[in-house]
Order: sequence, then structure tokens, then C-alpha cells
Amino acid sequence: MSGAKLQTAVMGSTGYVGVELAKLLLRHPRVATPLFVSRQGEPATQPLEEHYPELNDGRSYPLVPFTWELLKSRGVEVLFLATPHELSRELVPEALDRGLRIVDLSGAWRLKVAANRAVYGFEDRDAKRAAELDRTAVYGLPELHRDQIRDAALVANPGCYATSVIVPLAPLVRSGLVDTARGVVCDCKSGVSGAGKKPTQKTHFVEAADNFSAYSVFGHRHTGEILEQAGLDADELTFTPHLLPIPRGILSTIYLGLTRPVSAAEIDAVLREAYGSAQWVRLFGHGKLPQVQYSLRTNYCDVGFQLAPDGRRLIVVSCLDNLMKGAAGQALQNLNVMFGWGEKEGF
Amino acid sequence: MSGAKLQTAVMGSTGYVGVELAKLLLRHPRVATPLFVSRQGEPATQPLEEHYPELNDGRSYPLVPFTWELLKSRGVEVLFLATPHELSRELVPEALDRGLRIVDLSGAWRLKVAANRAVYGFEDRDAKRAAELDRTAVYGLPELHRDQIRDAALVANPGCYATSVIVPLAPLVRSGLVDTARGVVCDCKSGVSGAGKKPTQKTHFVEAADNFSAYSVFGHRHTGEILEQAGLDADELTFTPHLLPIPRGILSTIYLGLTRPVSAAEIDAVLREAYGSAQWVRLFGHGKLPQVQYSLRTNYCDVGFQLAPDGRRLIVVSCLDNLMKGAAGQALQNLNVMFGWGEKEGF
Amino acid sequence: MSGAKLQTAVMGSTGYVGVELAKLLLRHPRVATPLFVSRQGEPATQPLEEHYPELNDGRSYPLVPFTWELLKSRGVEVLFLATPHELSRELVPEALDRGLRIVDLSGAWRLKVAANRAVYGFEDRDAKRAAELDRTAVYGLPELHRDQIRDAALVANPGCYATSVIVPLAPLVRSGLVDTARGVVCDCKSGVSGAGKKPTQKTHFVEAADNFSAYSVFGHRHTGEILEQAGLDADELTFTPHLLPIPRGILSTIYLGLTRPVSAAEIDAVLREAYGSAQWVRLFGHGKLPQVQYSLRTNYCDVGFQLAPDGRRLIVVSCLDNLMKGAAGQALQNLNVMFGWGEKEGF
Amino acid sequence: MSGAKLQTAVMGSTGYVGVELAKLLLRHPRVATPLFVSRQGEPATQPLEEHYPELNDGRSYPLVPFTWELLKSRGVEVLFLATPHELSRELVPEALDRGLRIVDLSGAWRLKVAANRAVYGFEDRDAKRAAELDRTAVYGLPELHRDQIRDAALVANPGCYATSVIVPLAPLVRSGLVDTARGVVCDCKSGVSGAGKKPTQKTHFVEAADNFSAYSVFGHRHTGEILEQAGLDADELTFTPHLLPIPRGILSTIYLGLTRPVSAAEIDAVLREAYGSAQWVRLFGHGKLPQVQYSLRTNYCDVGFQLAPDGRRLIVVSCLDNLMKGAAGQALQNLNVMFGWGEKEGF
Repeated sequence: MSGAKLQTAVMGSTGYVGVELAKLLLRHPRVATPLFVSRQGEPATQPLEEHYPELNDGRSYPLVPFTWELLKSRGVEVLFLATPHELSRELVPEALDRGLRIVDLSGAWRLKVAANRAVYGFEDRDAKRAAELDRTAVYGLPELHRDQIRDAALVANPGCYATSVIVPLAPLVRSGLVDTARGVVCDCKSGVSGAGKKPTQKTHFVEAADNFSAYSVFGHRHTGEILEQAGLDADELTFTPHLLPIPRGILSTIYLGLTRPVSAAEIDAVLREAYGSAQWVRLFGHGKLPQVQYSLRTNYCDVGFQLAPDGRRLIVVSCLDNLMKGAAGQALQNLNVMFGWGEKEGF
Repeated sequence: MSGAKLQTAVMGSTGYVGVELAKLLLRHPRVATPLFVSRQGEPATQPLEEHYPELNDGRSYPLVPFTWELLKSRGVEVLFLATPHELSRELVPEALDRGLRIVDLSGAWRLKVAANRAVYGFEDRDAKRAAELDRTAVYGLPELHRDQIRDAALVANPGCYATSVIVPLAPLVRSGLVDTARGVVCDCKSGVSGAGKKPTQKTHFVEAADNFSAYSVFGHRHTGEILEQAGLDADELTFTPHLLPIPRGILSTIYLGLTRPVSAAEIDAVLREAYGSAQWVRLFGHGKLPQVQYSLRTNYCDVGFQLAPDGRRLIVVSCLDNLMKGAAGQALQNLNVMFGWGEKEGF
Repeated sequence: MSGAKLQTAVMGSTGYVGVELAKLLLRHPRVATPLFVSRQGEPATQPLEEHYPELNDGRSYPLVPFTWELLKSRGVEVLFLATPHELSRELVPEALDRGLRIVDLSGAWRLKVAANRAVYGFEDRDAKRAAELDRTAVYGLPELHRDQIRDAALVANPGCYATSVIVPLAPLVRSGLVDTARGVVCDCKSGVSGAGKKPTQKTHFVEAADNFSAYSVFGHRHTGEILEQAGLDADELTFTPHLLPIPRGILSTIYLGLTRPVSAAEIDAVLREAYGSAQWVRLFGHGKLPQVQYSLRTNYCDVGFQLAPDGRRLIVVSCLDNLMKGAAGQALQNLNVMFGWGEKEGF
Repeated sequence: MSGAKLQTAVMGSTGYVGVELAKLLLRHPRVATPLFVSRQGEPATQPLEEHYPELNDGRSYPLVPFTWELLKSRGVEVLFLATPHELSRELVPEALDRGLRIVDLSGAWRLKVAANRAVYGFEDRDAKRAAELDRTAVYGLPELHRDQIRDAALVANPGCYATSVIVPLAPLVRSGLVDTARGVVCDCKSGVSGAGKKPTQKTHFVEAADNFSAYSVFGHRHTGEILEQAGLDADELTFTPHLLPIPRGILSTIYLGLTRPVSAAEIDAVLREAYGSAQWVRLFGHGKLPQVQYSLRTNYCDVGFQLAPDGRRLIVVSCLDNLMKGAAGQALQNLNVMFGWGEKEGF
């Protein structure tokens, strides 16, 4: 490894996703210590290790007030946005104008279809420019869009639920084996960190522990990503998120009707064809199902499946860590792809 | 309240279901202190309050060695079996011959269809008698079979998952609104006490906490109960149990395709018609979904639902406490029905 | 049971302590459905069963705006205050003037010694009246002050930690066996509901789960109660609270040096003398230690102990449910004492 | 980094400590893939990644039957024993004879004082040899015995509780500021993985979750280590372990009386003198207390303290991960010291 290290900046590093990304970047051998900036227009708070004492390693990681000039003076090439989608929507055009490459971890730039974007209610200052960026932004799932990510200026890092569903679903739908008209049911369960760091009644320990609940039924924002990336019509997909009483981790149980009686070997072949050489997907095969614990604190998306005895119904179970492959880990994987590094570097 | 209290006996009171039943019976104003007996052929262990110090109230609850004579000498009228199904299968014929009424909490007598019983692999000494009892045993879900339970000699207390699914599903299927041919998906999640008291790797705290997993996919024993009681064909039902990192509680997410676009009011009407006067079913209506915490330590089965905007897909969420409405509480409710008492008595 | 039921009012019923009290009062056979009032000066919110769907039993429990006139018109005799201590401090004088009996669950009236009250920083409008009430208020630990509670107009319901420590400590200190000069160490651990319902970073599931921490070291507000009720000097007591990753329950480990080598029988005799006939204290004796689960959702304070082989050091372990014997349950026990009812009535 | 990688073997890699060590060794840049051997006399089981699917990275980690010849043929230089202490006691003499260096993670060789070893009840075949090894074995706490570890043939890796107590306690006792005659109270709390992988009633999720309990009061095996390493007499130390409902992590609250009024700066100076240059101890200073989460999955021992206002009483709180600094991490740190590598290498 030779040459200067990559200069990066992170906005939003005090949230659960942001700090996970900070930890990853701090370990990456090709990346310099990132510049941690406050949200645009907000003062910097105490240094990162005060927010997260586990970061303490004798060094200090100050947050500094964001300005474009600061980024330029530090030679920042890549800006990570772990910010609310409204803010990402606002910052990205200027960032691109200033020559930065961006990995945006919000939902701001993931959707190609206007109808799917409606749920976010974006209010863009320059609608034409925004529309152009909607078109050119690359959906940052390397397993599907590796080549485009390599050269992308704007990478829209996928949603956590969406990643857990799209990874197994996309190649299966593409194979033609899935009878999508019968309906695709995605019953998804996520740990509480998925709800963000801001304390609410729902995330209060006493309400979340010893509990389990469904939410955002027929109305979760990740629906559009799944439709677009898996190639489904809106009425073909039923996606239901649930809140698990664990800090992190997602398990998605995906129910598929098949167009004809199929063998386990056929399903296995479809998945191996798609991911046999993927470094961050682990295929468990038939009858072996991943559990949440297996992929915690890794960047893996684990996939297993079980076929009904009649060969006409398929259950796929996928697991990932919502803060890793579901957010910060995937962002780092995207960085690796963008710079032609090994996808496992820095992990 | 006048007259002598009912004499009962409980076999299997040291398990999680058994002790829950013991606690309920000890509080019931019409029931005498139950006789806690060891499993047939096994020595009695230390008293119940040594197994469960929370029972301590200054009295002792000894376990006594089981004999038929003992039951007779104590005037026992009702025998509760919280035993493995093989043992229930073996004991029940003789218990009936001796004039006892039985509430069996195992899976031994729940199934009417021989093909569904196959999964248990029963080896009956008197196959003819067993077949007769399979026919006459009453499935102990009072909301469906109240009249037959009243006079039943043998009540087969339902499975925990099965109860959570059948309560909402049976009237909806009966209504004709469900397109069962499109497939009914029941994604069910249960707390760890559902796996029983015997320690295993799966129930080790370190393996179960911070984890979540699917199990018995396309192969769980409660499948037959759901098919029979909800009136479905085997290939119409997909039922997937999952293990929740909580001590108790079940949430079932049920996915239904409808035969035509339906309004929330129609769904509501079907459920109110079925359970409007049921004392242990709480209907949350459209857009209000129950959570696991709401019914913990109660005998309620909570049911809510959400209709897709297209009116063609319905998601029903039901919750109950697997040790209460899913086992011991339902057994007590059955007792109340068998003796013509109020269904909420003793709770 | 004959005669009219007791009319009560509860202010603060939407908090964790308040709703626990509401549930208890709703079950009490001698108490009419309580009047649930908003905090003085605040509008009433949605009914109680909207805050806590588990309360749903077909009836509605509206919160009504508080006025003194309303209480009078409803014939309220007892007012429960599950309110911040400032508000209790403000309301109690007038409530007494209006002839109400009060059970105050805050820390407002527990302390006799001015120096101990300093930590609360009370700002009383009528300092003389407040000082008089500080003198006449009865510390509502029935095991120590049963006779005074019977006739009390103002019962100051003890703190949760304080109860768990005072119950075992008071008789042991009184016995003269404890060498208090060597220091009394109380290492106490509480579930998260003790921190209240308001969501904070500390009570966020992701911060509280898989975690454990000490807090308010050498500075917790319950210190004064323990000093006064156990009869210790300030420099004799070291009391350290810790936050347990469980919804409810307290375990206190109490370390005592003894004035001479003592036998287990002597310790046992002291505790039995004090609590042999107490209905809500369970003595586990020597070598048997209570666990948090045993007393959850009961009003028991469980006490066990272990003597060092040298007979000079004693470890006492006590457990209780912080929302029950530590708050609402004890309030109900106090009500029972105030009206001459059995101490277990309504539980 | 040049030259061949170090060859190591691990016995006991399927337990919680063993697999943690396996993961660490597999990442260490100076260590070859370890040889995972079955317990002496036992057949090899399925490969390690079958026991722990999270290990899956495309390679297989077979367990092979243990023989001394195998170790020799593979050029193994260091043997890690994550085995029951009886087995370590039996294997170590021969291992040393065969020229191996050993890091033993059991309690077999930690104690210098015969009276302290009594609790283990060792039955040595060659008592004289064992006594010699008891003398020459080095207690593997690098912060105290770095120089001896460097050249040790047999390193006795410390107990988890013991490490959390000795790290802060040893220098404080040595400083003469602690009035040990008044008694040192160590109230320690550990996550469930400390109880080992074998499922028991105590580690059953339903018994451990929502619970908390003290155990082994006045009788835990780590007592001797603390006495010897911190320099206390038996009647000066009271050490009480508790079981926390979390998978991993230890927090110890240590209560010390001081010989004279002391300032926070003095305490701070003692700790900084001892650990200012230690790479795996983090000093939080006065009024800042570590929490369990901060050191999870790291090899840090975190230490903070709070002085009473009177300056005569000191509370020290220390935290560590029982599987890392409390076991496998410390073993790797010892390896680093033994071979003169950086203490943070491989972490």
C-alpha cells in the first residue's frame, strides 16, 4: 500500500449509523482520520469520544463546524452523509458541484420512480437539477450495481430492511421462478437501533424490552426501494416491519410462490449464480437458515432457504446487521468499490 | 358462592405451563387447593415452592406420588395433564374409565385427521379406543367450541401458536372473504418459555438473547390444528415459527389475500360477529395493532388488522401470552366453561 | 363486605408508578373506581387505556381536569399523588385543609431532618406550615410505622431503593449487632422503570440493554430516608445505585460488619422478631438468597442473608418490585392500614 | 513483519472462551491458523464453523483429535488450554516436558498459596512436580507481571472477576492509602457467558432474563487470586459475584475505606503511576465511571472512581469484557508479551 491516504468527511457522526461508520473509517488502512463535521448550520458539539466513551483510545475526535471551505482546505474527496434525508437532499447538489464524491446514507437519492419518492415529500430548491440527480445517482448495493458504483459521483446507500430483502429477492425474481402475481410477502424484523438514537416512547427500554410489535404496515418508506430493485409491481409486494427487542440485527422472512414445482438445487443454483463470488453474501443453502447473531457486527448478508414439500412455495430467510451491511458497513463497502480496493478491506 | 369446592389434580406442575396453571388454580375461588402429583412412575420431587420460590406464601405445596387410588381418595373430579404427549396418550383412556374429566395441555388429543396426527407418531396400546377418543375429544378453544366443552369428558387444550392463529383466522375463512387458494401466510413469533423448561443450547441465555431465528419451517406440529380448526387445505397454509428473545408472549402476523376488494368495516363486522361477546378476545379494529406487552400475564387474545389500500390484501396481527391464553389460562377458561362458571372467574 | 366503597383520586396515573396504582385500585374490592385527574393546571389527556392498551377491559378510564371542587363533589376521601415532588409539596397543605387524607408517592414529605431535605431544594410558599407537615407526615413503611399510618392524614410513601434497604437494615441496626462505625455498604441495583416513563438517552433501549452502570454515587436522594429510618449517621452509610437492564425489580446487597462473632440463628432471630408476622416480608433465612424474579409483580420484600465463616461479616440480600413494594403496592398496603383492612386485601 | 508465523494449538475451542480465542488468533498477523484439537481422550467433533456459524468465511476449521505427536509434527510452540482445570492440571507437566509454552485459561495454576488452592481440590499424580509448577507458573496479568510473562513457560491466565478487581485494587493497596483492616468490599456483576456454554437451569433464558441474583457468596473460586495479587488477608476481602441478564461484560463496584482523608488527585496519581503507560487499561479519572458497554468486545479494563465528600471512602468501578480482558483477550495479550510483540497486535 503506497501513496497518500484518502481524505474523507462525515456529517452526522453522533448518530448510531454515523458512529459505526466513524469506527470503520478509523480502522481502514487506506483512509486518513476522517474529518467529523457538525450538521450544516449547527454548532459542533463535544468530541465524538464524549458521545461514545468506547471510542476512547487516547486520541480525541473533535467535531468541527461544517463549511465547504474546510472540506476543500483539508483535501476531502469523499463526503459521507449520515443525515436526515431533507438535509442530504439539500447538500448533495452543491457537494457535487464542488467536485466531491458522496455516499449518502439517508433515503434521499435511492428512488428512481417519482411515485415512490412521494412518501418522502421532498421540497427541492432546484427541481430540475434534483430530477437529474435522481436519475444519475447509483443505488449502492454493490452486489447488484458494482460497475456503476465504481464510477459514481453520488452513491445512495440502501436502506437496512431493503438490503435484507433485495439481496435474496432480486435474483430469484429475475430467474422467472417466482410467481409474483401470487404476491411476495416480506415479514421483516429489526433491532431497536434501526429507530435511531433520539429517545422516544417507542424506544424506551421499558416499552421495547419484553415486547414485539409490527409497525408502518402497508406504509414503510423502504417499500419503493424494494419494488424498484427487485422488479416488482406495487400490489405484488407486502412488506411488514416489526420491532425486535434487541439492539441490532435484522431477520427477514420472505414468502414466495413459485411458477412451477422447483427443486432445492434450482433455487441454490440461482443464488450461487448471483452471489457465488460475492464477498459479503453468505449462502447457507437449503434447510440451513441464518440467525441474527451470526452476522452481527459483520458486513455479511446471510441467506438461507427452505422449500415446501410440494416444491411450489419457498421461504427465504436473510439476516444482516442493520448498522453494518444495513448502513455503515455497506457505505464502506461502497467506498472500497469506488476506489477499486478489495471489498473486504478495512473490515 | 356456596357448596364444596372442586377437587382437581395437576400432573406436570413443575414445568412452565404447569406452574402457571398451579398459580391460577390456587387463586380460583371455586377450586380447592389442587393435588399436585408426580408424573406416573416417577418419584415426587421437592415441593412446588422449592422449584418456584415466588410461590412462597407461608404454605407448602408438596408433590405427591401419583396413583389412581390417591386421586379417588381425594375426590378429584378433574385431572389436568401438563405432560409430554406420549404420557397423555397413555393415561387418558384409564382416566376416563375412572370417571375423571380431563383437560390435557399436550398435543395428544387435538387432531381429528389421522394424517395430521402422523407427525406425533403415537403408539397406542389400544388403537381402537384411541381412535374413538380422537373422535370424541373436544378441541378446547371456547371461542369456537363452547357448547361441546361444557359437556366434554376430554378437553384437548390447544397449542399456543395455534390459538393465536385460529382465533382470527377461523371466522375470516368461514366468511368466504379469504382467497385461500392464494395461500395463507402465518409468520409467528414466540417467547422462549414456549420451548419448555428443560435447558438446551437453543434456550441458553447467550444463544437466545440478542438473537432471533426461524425454526421448524414447513414442519411444526401445530400445523395440523390450524388446518383443521381454520378449515384450510395443507397446501394453503404456510406457518413459520420464530424464537423471540423474550420470556413469554406470541405475536402472529397473518397475511391474507381477499376474494374481492373489501372494506375495513366488512372485516371488522366479521370479527365482531364472531367475538363481540367473547370475554377473552379483544378486538382492536382497523389500523390498531396489538403488541406483545398488552396481553402478557392475561388470558386475552388480542386481534387487530390493517387492510391494504387496494382492499385486496389483509394483514391481521394477533397477540397472546403463550403460558396463559396459549396454555394454562385457556385450560382454566375451559374449566370455567365445563362447570358453567363465568369465563373470567378466577383470573 | 358491606357499606359504600371508598372514593379515591389519583393524580399522575399516566406514569409507570401511577398506572400500577390504577391497576391495583381498580381490582380492590373495597375501593370504587378511582377518579383519575390530570396534574394541577394541566389539561386532561386521552383516557388511561389509550396510554396503556393492556388496561382495556371494555370500559373507559378517562382522565379529568383536576379541581378541588371535583374531588369534593365526588366524595373523594383519599388522594394519591404520583407526581413530581415539587407538585406534591405544593398541593398537600391545601389538600389537608380540605379534609383529604393523602398518600404521596413522591419524595416530598419523607424526610424529618432538614439537612437531608436540602438535596430536594424545596421552595415552600408557607415555610412554617411545611415544617409542621414535615414533622407530622408519617413515613409509610407499614412494617415500621403501622400504628402511626393507621391514623395519618399524610402518608409519605417510601422510595423504592430505600424500602429495599430499610426493611432488612432497620432491625439489624436496632439489635446492636451491627458495627455501624465500620461502615454500612448498600450496593443496590434497579430495573429501568425506576427511572420513570419520560424517554431519555439513558433509558433508550440501545443504551440500557446489554449494559450496566452505577450512578448518583455518593449523591442519591434516597440516602436521607435510609439514614433516618435505619438510624445511621451520614458517614456510616455508603449507598450506590446501579441500572439493571430489566424493566422492573430491585436487588440490594448489603454489607455489614458485626460487633462480635454472631451465629446465623441470632441474625435469623432478629429478622423473625421484626417480621415474623409481617404479611409482605418473606424471610429466606441463612444461605438462601432471594432473586429479582421471585417478587416481581408482588408486594413482597424478600430478605435472605449469608454470614461469613468468621461470623464477623454479614451479607444481606433483599429484593422487591420497584413499582409494587417500592411504590404503588406499598401505597395500597398503606391504604389498607389506614382503613383497618387486611394488608393483603386487593392484591 | 518477516519470518515464519507462530504455530499454536488450542484445546477447548468450542466453549465460549475457546471460540473467542480462536477468532482472535485467526486475525493475528503473526500467528498461523491454529491447530484446533479435541480434548485429550475425546473424539473430535464437527468443525468449529458448524458450532459457530458466524465463523463462516469460506474456509473450514476442523477439530482434530489431540495427540502430542500431532502437536510436534505441526511445529506447535504454544498450547492454549481453554479446558476444565482438572484437565489443565493433568496436561501441563507433560506439555512442559515436551518443550511447549502454555497459556492456561483455567484456574489450575493461578494460586501460589496452598490454602487458596484447596477450593479446587486438585488431585495431582506427581505432587512434587505440581508444587514446583505452582511456584514457577506466572500469573498472567501483564499489567502486574509483564517481565516474568516474557520468559514464562507456563502462564496462568487470570480469572475474569479477578482481573476486574485486581487491576484497580493492587496499586491502591500497595499505595498504603487503603485501610484494609476496615474491609474491602467487591460487589461484582457478570454477564451469563461467564457461566459457560453448557446449558443449565440457571442459564436458561427464562430464568436469567428479567432477573438478577447473587451467588457463591463467601465462596467463589476467584477469591484466592484476588487475595494473592492484591495483597490482602482472607478476612479483609468480601467478594460477591452476581449474575447480570446480559450475554457478556463485568462491572465491579469496589468499596474502600482510606487511612486518612485523601484527595481525588492522590487517587488519580496512584492509578496513573500504575497504568499511565498500560495499553489495555483506560483510566476514567474522578467522577467518571465506566459502563459495561464501553469495553465490550475490546481487551480494555476500564477504571473510574468517586471519592466521598469526606475523602475517607472511595468507590472504584471497573469494567471489562469477561471473554476478552477477562479470558481470551488477555490470553492473546500474554502471547504478545511472551514473544515481545506489541501488546495491541492482532486486536
